[in-house]
Amino acid sequence: MKVDLESALDRYLPRRGVPRLLRSAMEYTLFSAGKRLRPQLVLDVCESLGGDLRNAVPAACAVEYIHTYSLIHDDLPAMDDDDVRRGKPSSHVKFDEATAILAGDALQAAAFEAIAKVPDASLAGPLAASLARGAGAAGMVGGQVLDLAPKASLREIHLKKTAALFETSTEMGAIAAKSNRVRNLAHYGRQLGLAFQAVDDILDRDEKGRKNYAVLHGVEAARRFAAKAVGAAKGAIKFLGARGIRLSRIADFVLARTH
Amino acid sequence: MKVDLESALDRYLPRRGVPRLLRSAMEYTLFSAGKRLRPQLVLDVCESLGGDLRNAVPAACAVEYIHTYSLIHDDLPAMDDDDVRRGKPSSHVKFDEATAILAGDALQAAAFEAIAKVPDASLAGPLAASLARGAGAAGMVGGQVLDLAPKASLREIHLKKTAALFETSTEMGAIAAKSNRVRNLAHYGRQLGLAFQAVDDILDRDEKGRKNYAVLHGVEAARRFAAKAVGAAKGAIKFLGARGIRLSRIADFVLARTH
Repeated sequence: MKVDLESALDRYLPRRGVPRLLRSAMEYTLFSAGKRLRPQLVLDVCESLGGDLRNAVPAACAVEYIHTYSLIHDDLPAMDDDDVRRGKPSSHVKFDEATAILAGDALQAAAFEAIAKVPDASLAGPLAASLARGAGAAGMVGGQVLDLAPKASLREIHLKKTAALFETSTEMGAIAAKSNRVRNLAHYGRQLGLAFQAVDDILDRDEKGRKNYAVLHGVEAARRFAAKAVGAAKGAIKFLGARGIRLSRIADFVLARTH
Repeated sequence: MKVDLESALDRYLPRRGVPRLLRSAMEYTLFSAGKRLRPQLVLDVCESLGGDLRNAVPAACAVEYIHTYSLIHDDLPAMDDDDVRRGKPSSHVKFDEATAILAGDALQAAAFEAIAKVPDASLAGPLAASLARGAGAAGMVGGQVLDLAPKASLREIHLKKTAALFETSTEMGAIAAKSNRVRNLAHYGRQLGLAFQAVDDILDRDEKGRKNYAVLHGVEAARRFAAKAVGAAKGAIKFLGARGIRLSRIADFVLARTH
């Protein structure tokens, strides 16, 4: 089964009864050339485990809606105050602050609306639990709060701010596949997320910004940290044998961005 | 079964791994003397339909988390710019804007995390669908966008901004009770919400504010409108007979606030 992720992202977005301005603002950031890394992880994990991809598609869309809302809210003047996102004006610049806040809020609701539409209804609860944990106060949002705090540990920030949503992505892929290896895949995603953030810090080390691993500990240390996390990620999916090749390659790809 | 709503609201809020500041900000507005009208509706509808209240409690908490997050975001400087809420400093005044935005975001995630914990797991999907619709782009958030738009119709604003979450509350109560009268109860909630908003407009007619029914059409017209909606609400639950007495009284109570 070949999944057309872009059309699924459009299809699961609420349309009927949605004010036009709001729908525009939701689409503006959602369809602005994101890498789709997290939704692709949901799909790839489900497929690697031999699951039915139809149960993974709503979860894949959901995690991208969450990621998109977090970008919109992070760019707000009260947060990172970024006027540009992916080479285009940020949401609050293109529209206004109120619309940007509301577009983010609506995307979060849309994520759970998508989850509720999973074909196998017995998966709605476990998928929603995973997404809410990864996106919520103990996950991504908690990481944002720590990122703004004066003395939170970098590892704690990265674990919550970035790794939590990667973990949710791979966990949901495994849940969608009805695997009994959900914990292995969650671990794979968490380590992948830590590596991804360390690499991001290397690439962004010259930009102004808050806590950065490569700035604090040096580029070499960041690269070693990322390599170790990628090793741990690949270790967690060893049980997959040859079926794990694609997931191993994704891990290698995350690391290769440093070169 | 007697439900201790306040302790349930505390129990379903994520705690483990939540940064202390974030948890404080979430609790600050959540436990600031709200009327708990929406969660009580979830419980009362479920009980009136003879359902198992244990399945209604997570949904009751969820709708109050959503309502609370909407208050926090509505008060932000970019939105209504209200410094006071229920006689206390608003969230962004007590904490700061970034923390208020994130506390709202985390409360929305917490709502769906609560839903995912419903004891009868088969209800998680339908409850999440109802809540996401009522809270999202075609519901509450859509209403906020229209409220900020220059020429949206007042009825459309009230339907989305207020009535959608009332409708979700009563709909979720009926879903939790596994009733085959979900549509009747949704209609009851929607009409109740319209009445509630018209009455609110009467009570707030002297405050600065955006679109107000009582200011636009006069207090008498607003009262007539509310009375008609309350009549429609009571009509939708006629099938309950004597079991509908409490829900009828709630409708009367909403109207009585005008006097």
